[in-house]
Amino acid sequence: MDRSDSPSRELRLVGRDARPDRTIVRLRSGVTFGGETLAVCAGPCAVESAEQLEAAAHAVAAAGANVLRGGAFKPRTSPYTFQGLGERGLELLRASADRHGLAVVTEVLDPRDVPTVARYADMLQIGARNMQNFALLREAGASGVPVMLKRGLAATVDEWLLAAEYLLLAGNDQVVLCERGVRSFDPATRNLLDLSVVPLLAELTHLPVIVDPSHGTGVARLVEPMALAAVAAGADGLLVEVHPEPAQAASDGPQSILPAEFRTLMERLGAIAAAVGRRLPAASLAA
Amino acid sequence: MDRSDSPSRELRLVGRDARPDRTIVRLRSGVTFGGETLAVCAGPCAVESAEQLEAAAHAVAAAGANVLRGGAFKPRTSPYTFQGLGERGLELLRASADRHGLAVVTEVLDPRDVPTVARYADMLQIGARNMQNFALLREAGASGVPVMLKRGLAATVDEWLLAAEYLLLAGNDQVVLCERGVRSFDPATRNLLDLSVVPLLAELTHLPVIVDPSHGTGVARLVEPMALAAVAAGADGLLVEVHPEPAQAASDGPQSILPAEFRTLMERLGAIAAAVGRRLPAASLAA
Amino acid sequence: MDRSDSPSRELRLVGRDARPDRTIVRLRSGVTFGGETLAVCAGPCAVESAEQLEAAAHAVAAAGANVLRGGAFKPRTSPYTFQGLGERGLELLRASADRHGLAVVTEVLDPRDVPTVARYADMLQIGARNMQNFALLREAGASGVPVMLKRGLAATVDEWLLAAEYLLLAGNDQVVLCERGVRSFDPATRNLLDLSVVPLLAELTHLPVIVDPSHGTGVARLVEPMALAAVAAGADGLLVEVHPEPAQAASDGPQSILPAEFRTLMERLGAIAAAVGRRLPAASLAA
Amino acid sequence: MDRSDSPSRELRLVGRDARPDRTIVRLRSGVTFGGETLAVCAGPCAVESAEQLEAAAHAVAAAGANVLRGGAFKPRTSPYTFQGLGERGLELLRASADRHGLAVVTEVLDPRDVPTVARYADMLQIGARNMQNFALLREAGASGVPVMLKRGLAATVDEWLLAAEYLLLAGNDQVVLCERGVRSFDPATRNLLDLSVVPLLAELTHLPVIVDPSHGTGVARLVEPMALAAVAAGADGLLVEVHPEPAQAASDGPQSILPAEFRTLMERLGAIAAAVGRRLPAASLAA
Repeated sequence: MDRSDSPSRELRLVGRDARPDRTIVRLRSGVTFGGETLAVCAGPCAVESAEQLEAAAHAVAAAGANVLRGGAFKPRTSPYTFQGLGERGLELLRASADRHGLAVVTEVLDPRDVPTVARYADMLQIGARNMQNFALLREAGASGVPVMLKRGLAATVDEWLLAAEYLLLAGNDQVVLCERGVRSFDPATRNLLDLSVVPLLAELTHLPVIVDPSHGTGVARLVEPMALAAVAAGADGLLVEVHPEPAQAASDGPQSILPAEFRTLMERLGAIAAAVGRRLPAASLAA
Repeated sequence: MDRSDSPSRELRLVGRDARPDRTIVRLRSGVTFGGETLAVCAGPCAVESAEQLEAAAHAVAAAGANVLRGGAFKPRTSPYTFQGLGERGLELLRASADRHGLAVVTEVLDPRDVPTVARYADMLQIGARNMQNFALLREAGASGVPVMLKRGLAATVDEWLLAAEYLLLAGNDQVVLCERGVRSFDPATRNLLDLSVVPLLAELTHLPVIVDPSHGTGVARLVEPMALAAVAAGADGLLVEVHPEPAQAASDGPQSILPAEFRTLMERLGAIAAAVGRRLPAASLAA
Repeated sequence: MDRSDSPSRELRLVGRDARPDRTIVRLRSGVTFGGETLAVCAGPCAVESAEQLEAAAHAVAAAGANVLRGGAFKPRTSPYTFQGLGERGLELLRASADRHGLAVVTEVLDPRDVPTVARYADMLQIGARNMQNFALLREAGASGVPVMLKRGLAATVDEWLLAAEYLLLAGNDQVVLCERGVRSFDPATRNLLDLSVVPLLAELTHLPVIVDPSHGTGVARLVEPMALAAVAAGADGLLVEVHPEPAQAASDGPQSILPAEFRTLMERLGAIAAAVGRRLPAASLAA
Repeated sequence: MDRSDSPSRELRLVGRDARPDRTIVRLRSGVTFGGETLAVCAGPCAVESAEQLEAAAHAVAAAGANVLRGGAFKPRTSPYTFQGLGERGLELLRASADRHGLAVVTEVLDPRDVPTVARYADMLQIGARNMQNFALLREAGASGVPVMLKRGLAATVDEWLLAAEYLLLAGNDQVVLCERGVRSFDPATRNLLDLSVVPLLAELTHLPVIVDPSHGTGVARLVEPMALAAVAAGADGLLVEVHPEPAQAASDGPQSILPAEFRTLMERLGAIAAAVGRRLPAASLAA
């Protein structure tokens, strides 16, 4: 409940010393996080319709992503904004992903929904607002499905790793950390993307870490440069919001990039990846 | 999900204009938040044993508090620290509170636990980590029991009010806001207690607001001056950690004050309350 | 240059243990900071004209303030906004203050201006942006005139005290600390007023501390409640922006209060001061 | 003096629209900031001795840096820590830089020292603590020497650009912005390096921007990955602390890297630079 009860010696399972090697998280589909190949998760903020999702899935698969992202259960600041399609959204995600050979990552908000979401998704996302939702962490930890744990809005690295410790302690060692920016005093960006955690986490834990430059900046035109920077800093992958019509998006339009912009991003990412000894997902070779 | 979807015009139920008068929240026991009489909630961070709780309840009642606080389900940063006594803790809270004529406020962490906690407590506390746990907000909103909603670790006032909006929209208008400090760059205190929200909320909402100077500072010797300042700024009440033996506390020892210190706090609070046209709980008159 | 070179043991002159008693800072006029009587500094953000200043000085003196504040040299974020009247502003300050029996506190920005400002003012103000302007600290320290040192925009308490240490080391022990709010993530207020430093500083240093609720909140209607809270928390005085016509103010209009509002503030402050064993400046008795 | 007086329309000289092309800042020695070739400034935090500086200059030149950094006047949080060698330090910087074909960038703290520092240095550094030291900005703006303006500890991008506006308004358009991290709630790093400003500034201004990963993280082992990330994000150069014996450094030892580590950094940087269409300073080709 406070900073002082978070000593690093409590990182019994997630600490760097807990394992000889770095963890490679492997989804059912074979997609990996933490190996030489980057994991690229892309798609709309929210699943809005079959058409929107299919257009996004087609575009991100063609550009070389290997995981489809999209929210069916949406955590919204206001109760009056779009809350997601629920299980219908999960069905759409599964169908579009399967059509394009993608894996699915999607957020779960309620511990009671874990089994349902796990039935459709290859990876459960625990969002920033729920990083310390311990009931949800315990259920996700017991689900048997890989988990992407986003950093809380103002979480220290220690608190983040201890939240991951809850997952591992519940029996799930297939955990990927996702940096998505923290609160800042400067309204110039929506959040302050903290890329220094990428190399820092590589020292503190054996778990893979990816970066979300969309939430991390909140500004579409900053997504590509920060995606490149993330991989240059050593990130194991990316989580990017791509929407066929950002101006019509039910949420997060200002930070979503167009399919064409995502294609350019992936092309430039290839050169950066090569410069740091990584490579893009195999799917992109076939594209 | 971001700052921009939180316009004040979405404060349909919690906004100041939604009602002609300020809301007075009334617990089953008759304790009120928002009237001329202050609400003073005090007790240990966590319920640890019948003896510890009874000593604390006796002390805070004698000093004039009217609500007993204490955690039975504890949100802990680390999975290896004390997680609370669970339902056994709720039983102890109820018993000690009844013996001393106090109401009970206690935290609920899991939406599935809302009915159980509501059976024992007069008021459900939603903690800082769960301010945007929307599943929990919906259950608490449907519980029929008054709710104390703490501000998130780095929540803006707009986000906090919109979280309260979820509660009211679910049918519960018995909601008290509790400022408990936000994240800061200065390690001199555990959190940065933001007292300016007290008069600010009085303009933005009809809901009562109380202040937790214990979590708000994390330093026992700062609790009394900040409690006085909170009431001078217009707070409708306080939430204070009091422990018979802080050095032995299972959690939050450094910020818990002794029964004798709480007595002094209440005495000094009386003068401040009078200066701003408020008064201490009636119980204190009998003490 | 970093946090780690700021250990408390370097507080050789400002640390609480450096003196048996608390320091009482005494201006030439006899006004004191740190004794039983509060110091109340009030006036416009900037000196704009003889008429504006005279109206403000008259009003604040009548309401019971004992120090006139007003900027002649203004630190402005933009080079295109009003930069102050310079030495002409100092002359106006001195004249208005003398007419109303007030002392003068005013900001100095440039080490080369210290002798000029010291000729007119009873107290030099070092602003938040200059808290670690070490050249300015050394000149102010050697000036022989009392100094009000405002906390930096994002300064830790340790850094602030070490900045004061520069002043004392240069031979000036007449130093008052002024809390004026720090940077925050919430745009609801201009700064986040950190009242917890008031009791914290009372433990760490023998120097007096006052509070500026005008910059600390940036919102006129929050000034009075935060002024009351500051004194309840133990502050030795206040720094308040009062302007006869806030809507016409050359700077800081939104946070300036009207003379009538200041009068009300002082009346309510009297009751709070009495509740914590302090009293208003004697001048107010005559008002 | 506040956020609200910082509208972007006041960026008359530094705004992106003020010029058709991006500014290329050119030092006397021919080193440029803002062109295809990166500027790499490296050296010790403080000039400590002829031997220390000579070793550092030799190492950074050999590894391909083109500018020698080093502090002769040091802004120190505590008055009791090493304050720099003053003019003797400037002489040593000039001599070592000349011997190795490097330009010199060094900090100036006091407006009265600008002419002296300008006599020795090719570029004046205005440090984070002085970003809004307007007297210093005006003198530096009038000096005729290029200026590196570091971002303040908690400065918004708007405030930073308006500080640069002071320099241009004083007649100096040879200005480079340097991101060096901002204050954060997480003690895991000394500052939070905000790389998103790199692409953001490219939209808002025609001025070049470089990144200081040493102060930006405060941790030596994070310097290389964040340097690579900075260039991937589009930075025009770097400012890196290199010390022959970090453990003996008079300041900033924990964030200084060894000459061998700097060599590795430069090698890896070459690949990243190529991936984004940039190249290392020509000197490195000869190394």
